[in-house]
Formats: sequence, structure tokens, C-alpha cells
Amino acid sequence: MPLFPLRRIASFKPGQFIPRLSTPYTPRRFFYGHISDSKMAPNLEPFFKEYAVAIPSISAQDENRKDVFRMAQFLADELEALGAQVEQRPLGKQPGKEHLDLPPVVVARYGNDKNKRTILVYGHYDVQPALKEDGWATEPFELTIDEKDRMYGRGSTDDKGPVLGWLNVIEAHRKAGVEFPVNLLCCFEGMEEYGSEGLDDFIKAEAKNYFKDADAVCISDNYWLGTEKPCLTYGLRGCNYYSVSITGPAQDLHSGVFGGSAHEPMTDLVNVLSKLVDAQGNILIPGLMDLVAPVTDEEMALYGDISYTMDNLHESLGAETGIHPTKERTLMARWRYPSLSIHGVEGAYSAPGAKTVIPAKVIGKFSIRTVPNMESPDVNKLVFDHVKAEFAKLNSKNKLDVWLQHDGKWWVASPKHWNFSAASKAVEQVFGVAPDMTREGGSIPVTLTFEQATGKNVLLLPMGSSTDAAHSVNEKLDRRNYIEGTKLLGAYLHYVAEEPISA
Amino acid sequence: MPLFPLRRIASFKPGQFIPRLSTPYTPRRFFYGHISDSKMAPNLEPFFKEYAVAIPSISAQDENRKDVFRMAQFLADELEALGAQVEQRPLGKQPGKEHLDLPPVVVARYGNDKNKRTILVYGHYDVQPALKEDGWATEPFELTIDEKDRMYGRGSTDDKGPVLGWLNVIEAHRKAGVEFPVNLLCCFEGMEEYGSEGLDDFIKAEAKNYFKDADAVCISDNYWLGTEKPCLTYGLRGCNYYSVSITGPAQDLHSGVFGGSAHEPMTDLVNVLSKLVDAQGNILIPGLMDLVAPVTDEEMALYGDISYTMDNLHESLGAETGIHPTKERTLMARWRYPSLSIHGVEGAYSAPGAKTVIPAKVIGKFSIRTVPNMESPDVNKLVFDHVKAEFAKLNSKNKLDVWLQHDGKWWVASPKHWNFSAASKAVEQVFGVAPDMTREGGSIPVTLTFEQATGKNVLLLPMGSSTDAAHSVNEKLDRRNYIEGTKLLGAYLHYVAEEPISA
Repeated sequence: MPLFPLRRIASFKPGQFIPRLSTPYTPRRFFYGHISDSKMAPNLEPFFKEYAVAIPSISAQDENRKDVFRMAQFLADELEALGAQVEQRPLGKQPGKEHLDLPPVVVARYGNDKNKRTILVYGHYDVQPALKEDGWATEPFELTIDEKDRMYGRGSTDDKGPVLGWLNVIEAHRKAGVEFPVNLLCCFEGMEEYGSEGLDDFIKAEAKNYFKDADAVCISDNYWLGTEKPCLTYGLRGCNYYSVSITGPAQDLHSGVFGGSAHEPMTDLVNVLSKLVDAQGNILIPGLMDLVAPVTDEEMALYGDISYTMDNLHESLGAETGIHPTKERTLMARWRYPSLSIHGVEGAYSAPGAKTVIPAKVIGKFSIRTVPNMESPDVNKLVFDHVKAEFAKLNSKNKLDVWLQHDGKWWVASPKHWNFSAASKAVEQVFGVAPDMTREGGSIPVTLTFEQATGKNVLLLPMGSSTDAAHSVNEKLDRRNYIEGTKLLGAYLHYVAEEPISA
Repeated sequence: MPLFPLRRIASFKPGQFIPRLSTPYTPRRFFYGHISDSKMAPNLEPFFKEYAVAIPSISAQDENRKDVFRMAQFLADELEALGAQVEQRPLGKQPGKEHLDLPPVVVARYGNDKNKRTILVYGHYDVQPALKEDGWATEPFELTIDEKDRMYGRGSTDDKGPVLGWLNVIEAHRKAGVEFPVNLLCCFEGMEEYGSEGLDDFIKAEAKNYFKDADAVCISDNYWLGTEKPCLTYGLRGCNYYSVSITGPAQDLHSGVFGGSAHEPMTDLVNVLSKLVDAQGNILIPGLMDLVAPVTDEEMALYGDISYTMDNLHESLGAETGIHPTKERTLMARWRYPSLSIHGVEGAYSAPGAKTVIPAKVIGKFSIRTVPNMESPDVNKLVFDHVKAEFAKLNSKNKLDVWLQHDGKWWVASPKHWNFSAASKAVEQVFGVAPDMTREGGSIPVTLTFEQATGKNVLLLPMGSSTDAAHSVNEKLDRRNYIEGTKLLGAYLHYVAEEPISA
């Protein structure tokens, strides 16, 4: 049965040798439609018509909403075919876009044995927008494999690969006739890339219903720190996103006619924005750094062992523009210190070319990544006070407003819980190394929601690597990460079944 | 003949009383298609199908190029019907968009009497883009007259009103049977709002051919300083437009994953941009103000008499955000001092909403309005040196580049030339006041081209007022300005015929 070498990942008990795959192989669910790399064709079942990457399930674009629904149906069909009990749970109309239905949450149960642990897994089946003309080297919705076995396509790593990983695990167990080690609960959403509309309420409502048996939660929706060594992630930064608007004249002005005689909102805005953070990444908002939990000796000792180099940073940046001289300081800057980024300006001239406009109203956008023990109301107050004070110094007659667009709290879990121990053993089994215990700079708000709603330990178990370019052009997932990552998810469930109760 | 009360403007000799129009009246050429204001309909010739404002002759948009050609044909037909010798002169393909033909220059000669002076008039028949959803209160390509006799429509004031003014003058003379006082040469272009592609070469080539008889040039494509008193314009600022790019990572980054660990181009850019000009409009580039010609006592004495108030400024701004406390300082800031405006940022996040991107490459756009005696190469050197020096202070590993996108020189003419004297007398005749002698903050590059190519005096003789919102939403021309402005153009030609030779 060369078409299903993945059965091999289930043909073991923890401690047994897991054979590496010798043949190139990509599970069929990943493809759809055109196969760009003809050498891959022999490994695919030609009679399958629908494959995941080819469904442009872009949650942010109205015109693709039907594709998001198609993707939900695809997942539900696949899960049912694998013997899971599946439901597509509606979330109602999209707030603010009432002509659109929110995509359903695809929930599934696989196994219902009171003597087994129950693991709740989360993933999302929607993707970021992508257009070839954004700079993709290949068609973004046509999975294309290059000579280095990198699988390019929107959603490949974020998050269709990991979601299909769970399906592959079930399939491999069934094909190999191996008993599934746990009860599996799936929660796959279709609005993650557009703010997870409706999901929080759904999770809170189902925590004591559909998800009530869950003993732990596992989310595969982040990335390795580098490209070689897997990691388990136990912390995330939060994010407070701000807008600062400056308003002057009633309408845009001609810079020839009015330049020099009126206060210009854009001049004021760049002045205010320049007072937020310096070029070395130091946040200039008084009092903000005082909110940050101090570094303990124990924590400081952790960073040296992490498998990460400045070369990893440079590779993922595609440039040698790192701020800090060492990996330790780089990791701390990313994980445990806040950062402030200026994202752009709304209302100013943003097209190529030249336009001699004085924009009447400009809105600067910036965000602060938050860490323990920064509480959002404290951060907001410091930000608002500072922005207003800097603007006041300008003596401009324009008007300033500053407000919080949204916030999401940081999250730190206990990495000593059995959920993490099991995952750690699985990494050692599949990859032959102990995983790095990492935090992440980004936020995955659903992590905190699951923790708070279920009261259970949440583990982030990534499949992709640091160079996968999620959200960017040329998003990819290395085939190695997909196949070994699928094995990892399977092995994790086997270890979960055996772990003693821990913290 | 109530349909042609404009005949009245020609039924006089200089010095005679010119009757004010007592009936509301709008020459027919200004309308096309739907008449939104039904009370105006009785004053229009119902059998005319094509009127100027309704032809969306947007030169910047490929899909409207056919309308620009339609507008050229409309003008040519009208001129021919009035007895002028008309040619549509092709300018070839549009550079960089070779699938598009440039719109023709509509040239016309009306009269060829060696004993008369020959006046070359310039205008443009293309318009800025406009969409109702940009915020127009009315359909932009449907001339709509409100209760205050303001005629709203794209191109109404810039520059279809003035162009049709010249046609109205010819028509009025013909209908009234009054001899035309000069030979008129028309040069109407169709690419003014998109950089006057091809026009410079055309003017240079025709200066000694089609335009060789011209004794002076008159351009009606600017605006009164306020809303009540006409002006003659003898100076314009130039414009040097710059881009400054900062490049860091190879692609956009996620601010959660990389915030704090890498130099961010947008942080660097707002820092550099904040060092160009302060909130009070003072340019911070060392040495730049040393290039500016000093103010003489004679010049200083001029500003007090100009009919302009801070209320005029506030009205045109739609806000009380003027920098300077007096009209004199405001006018000097606008006319005779340089200004620096920051127009926007290309490459950053500019949409509404929130996106946690670290843009990989951002390009700031700014321009400096130049005045005597700022020479472009000197300005460029100071700008480049300053921007690079400010960037160097940041100690960023990102890369900066700064370059000139385009420049256009300032222009100052002699307001004592007979061309200006004639116009001044015409203003007194039609409006009963001496005009303000003004300069303008904006640039009209063709002015300098005509001066340099023909060697003749160039006069800017505006029709519209300061509140006309050219280039903005709700562009309008007051009916008073259209009718009295048409009389003004006619009276100007009569005085031109009589003026003795001057400087």
C-alpha cells in the first residue's frame, strides 16, 4: 500500500523505533486541482477532486465566504469518512456584515472511551488573503513543491497543514489497525484570520458541554523557533493595538496653495509617532517598562540552551537587521519584553507616484506587544497620557485623538504539566532531540480563551518552522515538517495516554 | 434674445458702463445631459445634447481616455462653429502606457489681422478623478446648481469654466456683431491633471510656428485669493518632490514574532520625517532658508493692501488651523517662503482597521515649495545631506535612499507689463475695483514653459475663487464668477488692444 506510508506512524508503541519515510510522500488532502509539480503526481490518488490548499478559504474577503464554507464541508466530509462524529456548528451572522453568515465551527469527536484521556485539539481552516501579483513566485492556491521539498501555498503552514495532520493521524491508525490511544475532540474554526468572530462565546458555552470531557488542550498553530529543532510553546505576548488620529482642515488641501500657512496633520503625526519608540526598539513611553516582570536568575539560565542562532534570525528576516548582538537578548526581546511597532498611516497618500496633497485627517496605527505583568488598562493610560503630552508640546491647532482598537492578553502556562511532558517525549521519539521550551512574541488569543474556559492546561505544539512565511507571500510548509509533524501529533497522543497526573 | 445675454459683455468699448446681468444665466456649453436644477432649465437651449462638465475627461484613468478625446472633439466642434480655425494636434503614445494615445492639443486661431495684437490663451479640458462615493454631495459629472448659485461639478472651476469663458467671449462678440479686438490663439490641452505629458515639447516646437505671432500669453487656471476680489497673478512657487525609502527585512514581518528583535523601517522613517519640518511650518533642513531671497521694504509694503483676511483662510481651510497670526505673514508663508509638506507613506499599512505588520520597505513622500532664489540642485543637495545625516544618527542597520521624484521651477513675471495693465483695467471695468497683484503658492509649470519658449509676458488671470475646491470633492464655480469672469476675459482683450507698449 505505497499510497499510505503514513500508516507507519501508528505502527509503534512509545519506545519503539519509528521508521523514517524513505519515499517522498504528501497526503492527498493537501492537494486539489492542478498539480504543478509533475514528479509528485505518482504519489497522489488521482481520483480525489478536492484538496485543501486549493480552496481559497479567505475569511477576510466577502467574495470568498463561500469558499470558507466549502472548506468546512471538505473537513467535515473527511472527518466523517474517517469515522468521527462531526457537527458543523453555526455562529450566526457576521457582526457589522449581516449579509454574511459566519463560517461554522467544525467540531468532531473521535472515540468515546471513559477509560481514555480526552484531548481537545484546535486549528483553523481559513487563510489570509493572497494574490499572485502580491509577489508570489507560484499560484498561491495551487500547492507547488520545489526541488528542496518545500510545499508552497496559502494556508500550507497556517493552518491547513497542522489541521490535516490530525486527520492523517486518525487515518494512519485506522489503516494500520492500531487502537487510537485517546478520545479526540476537534475544534476547527473558519474565522481565525479575521479576529475569530464568535469563537470566544462558542468556546465559553461549550466548555461545559461539547468540550466538557477534555483533559487538556493542544493547539498546533505556531512555529518552531528555527528550522531544525521542534519546540513546545508555553507563553505568548499579548497585543494592545492603538490608533492616533490628527485632524486639521475640513478637506485635503493642495500643498502649493496651503503649504506653510496651515498646521499639517501629517507633520504632527510623524512627530508624535517618532516619540513612541527609538530605532533600537526602546519604548519611549514613561513608566511602561516598570510594568514588566523582572527577570529571575532561573529564567535567565534558560535562554542559553535554546537552539537558536543569530543566523536563524537573519535567515527569517532575510537581512542582517537584528537589533541585539546575542541570541539571548534577541529571544528576550521577542518573548519576555514588550515591543512597539508602527504599522502605517491611514488617510495619507499611500500610492506609488507623487501627489501634492496635504491630508486633512491622518490616523497612525501602532501596537504594543505586552508581557507579564502588564495589565491593559495601565498600558492604555500610559500610552494615552504620553501621546497627548507629546502632541501638546507641538503647539499645533490641529486636533488629536488616541484610542485602543483592540487588546488581547499575554498568556503563560505551566510547562511542567503532563500535557507538556507527553509532547516532550513525542518530540524526542520522532526527532531524537529534546524540544526547546519556548515562548512566542505573537498572540494566539484563543489559547487564553481555552485555558480560561476549560480550566485545563493548554499546549502549543507547532508543526511548521520559522521560515514558513505565514501571512506573507510564498507561504510554505516543508514536507519534512508535514510528515514528521504528523508523526509527532500521533506520538504525542500515545504519550498523553500514558502520562501520570501532574501539575 | 434672452438666451444670449452674454452679448452684452461685448457691446461696449472700454470706459462704457457694462450692465450687470439681472437674470440668472449660464451659457449652454457648461451643461450636458441631466439638468439637476430645474429652475435653470428655461435658461438653457434644450436641443444641445453635449455639455462640458458631463464629459468625464479624467486624464489619469485609462478607462476615461475616450472621454478626454470626446471632450477635445466637443471643444473643437464648438470653436469651429464659432468660426475659428481649429486643429487637434496629436502628441503620440503615452510614455509608459503605450497602449494609450495622448489626448490632442486643441489649437485654434480666431482672427488673423496684422494690425491687431495676438493673444495666446491656454487652458486644459481634462479633469481630476471624481467619484460620488469620495464624498460628493451631488453627482460629480452632473452640473448642479444650489440655492446660492454655486455650480457644482468636476472641472467646473478647473478648468472647463475658464476654457469655455474664452468661447463665450467669441460667441458674445459674434452675436452682438462687435468686432473682435485681437487675434486669439488657443492652446487647450488634455493632460494637465496628469503631468501635461508631451506639452512642453509641443510648446517649444510651436513657439516659432503656430504660436509665433503671440504678443503675450494669458492663462486662466488659478483662483482668486479670497471670494470677493479678483486678482492678477505674477508669481508661482516651484516644487521639488522627494521620496525617502527605508528598507529592512526581505519581506513584511509579523510584529508579534519580530517586534523588538529587528530594526523596523517604519520607526526609522517617522524619525527621519519628523526632522524635516516642525509643527509651526519651519523647515529644519540646515542652509535651506539661506537660499531664499530677502524681503525688501517695497515688497513688504505690498501685503497690507491685499484683500485677504484670516477669515478667508479659515473659510478655505474649513478650520481655524492657520499657523500665523496675521494675513501678511500668512500670505508671505504661502507666496514667498518655501514650505515643506509630508504627503504620505507608501508600503506601510494604510487601510482602515488593524494589521499587525512590520512593513519591510516604506517610502516617505514629501515636497518643498520653492521660491526665488532657490535653485533645484542646491535644494537637492541640502535635502539629501540632511536626510542622510538624520538617518545616520539613528544607528539603524536598515538601508536608506533618498531621491528627487520631480522638480519644477518657481516663476515670477513683471506685473508692470502692458499685459498686466490691460487685465488690471478690465478688472476695474467689470468689478469696479483694482485687482490684487498676487503670487501663488502652487505651481503651474506650463507658465514657465510659455515664458521661456515664447519669450513673451505671461499673465495669470483667474476666474474662480478660493473656495472652489479644485481637485477636492464638491468642486464648484460660482455663477457670478463664471459670468463676470467671462466679461473679464472679454474686457481684457479690449484693453489689450489699446495698451501702449511697455516693459
